[in-house]
Amino acid sequence: MLLKAPPHQVAGHQAAEGNLGPLVDGAGRFFKPLQDHDRGSKEVGFYQSFWSNSQLPPNVYRFFPSFYGTQLLEASDGSGPREHLVINDVVSSLYRPSVIDVKIGSRTWYPGASDEYVDKCVEKDRTSTSLKLGFRISGLQVYQTEELGLWKPGRRWVKAILSIDQVRSVLRAFVSSNASSSSPDCTHAPAIFGGPTGVLAQLLELKQWFERQTFYHFYSTSVLLMYGRDEADGSRPVAASVKLVDFAHVVDGEGVIDHNFLGGLCSLIKFVEDILESVDGSVAWTSKLGSAAD
Amino acid sequence: MLLKAPPHQVAGHQAAEGNLGPLVDGAGRFFKPLQDHDRGSKEVGFYQSFWSNSQLPPNVYRFFPSFYGTQLLEASDGSGPREHLVINDVVSSLYRPSVIDVKIGSRTWYPGASDEYVDKCVEKDRTSTSLKLGFRISGLQVYQTEELGLWKPGRRWVKAILSIDQVRSVLRAFVSSNASSSSPDCTHAPAIFGGPTGVLAQLLELKQWFERQTFYHFYSTSVLLMYGRDEADGSRPVAASVKLVDFAHVVDGEGVIDHNFLGGLCSLIKFVEDILESVDGSVAWTSKLGSAAD
Repeated sequence: MLLKAPPHQVAGHQAAEGNLGPLVDGAGRFFKPLQDHDRGSKEVGFYQSFWSNSQLPPNVYRFFPSFYGTQLLEASDGSGPREHLVINDVVSSLYRPSVIDVKIGSRTWYPGASDEYVDKCVEKDRTSTSLKLGFRISGLQVYQTEELGLWKPGRRWVKAILSIDQVRSVLRAFVSSNASSSSPDCTHAPAIFGGPTGVLAQLLELKQWFERQTFYHFYSTSVLLMYGRDEADGSRPVAASVKLVDFAHVVDGEGVIDHNFLGGLCSLIKFVEDILESVDGSVAWTSKLGSAAD
Repeated sequence: MLLKAPPHQVAGHQAAEGNLGPLVDGAGRFFKPLQDHDRGSKEVGFYQSFWSNSQLPPNVYRFFPSFYGTQLLEASDGSGPREHLVINDVVSSLYRPSVIDVKIGSRTWYPGASDEYVDKCVEKDRTSTSLKLGFRISGLQVYQTEELGLWKPGRRWVKAILSIDQVRSVLRAFVSSNASSSSPDCTHAPAIFGGPTGVLAQLLELKQWFERQTFYHFYSTSVLLMYGRDEADGSRPVAASVKLVDFAHVVDGEGVIDHNFLGGLCSLIKFVEDILESVDGSVAWTSKLGSAAD
């Protein structure tokens, strides 16, 4: 089995010489090294609980990566064998994937965390858009035209997404054929954000679950928005998909809904709706959806 | 004009000898002394903005007290003339009102507040149910039967509502004829929480607005849930009503939804739904409403 760093990873620790990070096998499996301080085992615990919970509505499973247990593997940093979480590589089925990682919640720390961890999170929430918007963009890559190719801004660029206008621009860029330009065209907004199987419809379905589910509270969990291209016609966007990832800080909901996640999710939904409404031709569709969702 | 302390006030500063608090005229007007540190003028500013905002959907106005400007009055603490905010006394039209004050939001401080104010709020949010549940109960009174009379727990009792089970019990007590007992009967839940004009229907209507409105972010604002009794038949509960009050810490939404308020509101809604579903006979109705709201 030949493992490599995930070619389409846009956020999080990156595997490299001397650096611990996730690996993929190129055949649909994603190997995430168990982190220290029991974070790794907490994430495994979440996957075990989630995939054996018989009280979840069947439509929510597709929003989560499949779980294949754990496996002892050589760690990417060369430190020797280490236990890895084995899950589905959610990007692997997409040709030329465009991906954006949106960390949900105005608060990324969970009740009961150490003071040190809370302080670190409070600082990141305050100095990013999390506190103000209820989410922050942690990374992205966009396949543009054949000519413009892949656009994958660096970490420092992503960390500088601080204003509401910048967030709006980046979400517009995500569905544009000229993503890296200063005026993204939003060409793919109707096909990817809109429609009965688009990103907005999926986010609204996820929201419905969060309005009722009291099993889990998701802190520091991201929503991945993704789409690929048609393999025959490399420019046609296909397969809009929404997945939740990163569950090292999921805690028991204790009978209360996850109001922190739900609030942030609703804020993201409003941005996506606004973009769709700003694009000619999709207005009629989104307002129809709006009233269906009311 | 004879003014007195509001007889049905359940939370907030209370007017008394040497104590600054609101007054009512018994004819439907509520006089709130403008607080120091420009909080008072901020609340007046909100009312002026809200009642002159022509872009609001007409159905939201009924959730807010009417605004009658400001008036110079003798302050309740005997300190002399002071400017007062004049608004509708939302409880005045109810006979034998039962009222619960629910402060919404897991976070009650607003961006830009002083460090001192933020610290005070963080401490209150952490040591109450706000952080965990997205709301806290600030006060209540319940008219029970003719025999049991009014139940109005003291401030110290209200501050001790700290667990999820206690919150559930208090919300059940609010619609019970034996509110002060250890096993509230929820007799009035179908009539007050349920039905097409009940509390749940009104909260869901408010939620729809919060999913879209980006004008205002409401920090430390409360939802008042109220109902009265039929004047002819003193035991029959009538006129379930939901009002927002306390706008001293409302800030500009800057194009983003109020995810902090919305999350807490959804959490409160789930509690009300759960109570309704636990009461025989109302299950069919609430599930119908649930699917209409989806």
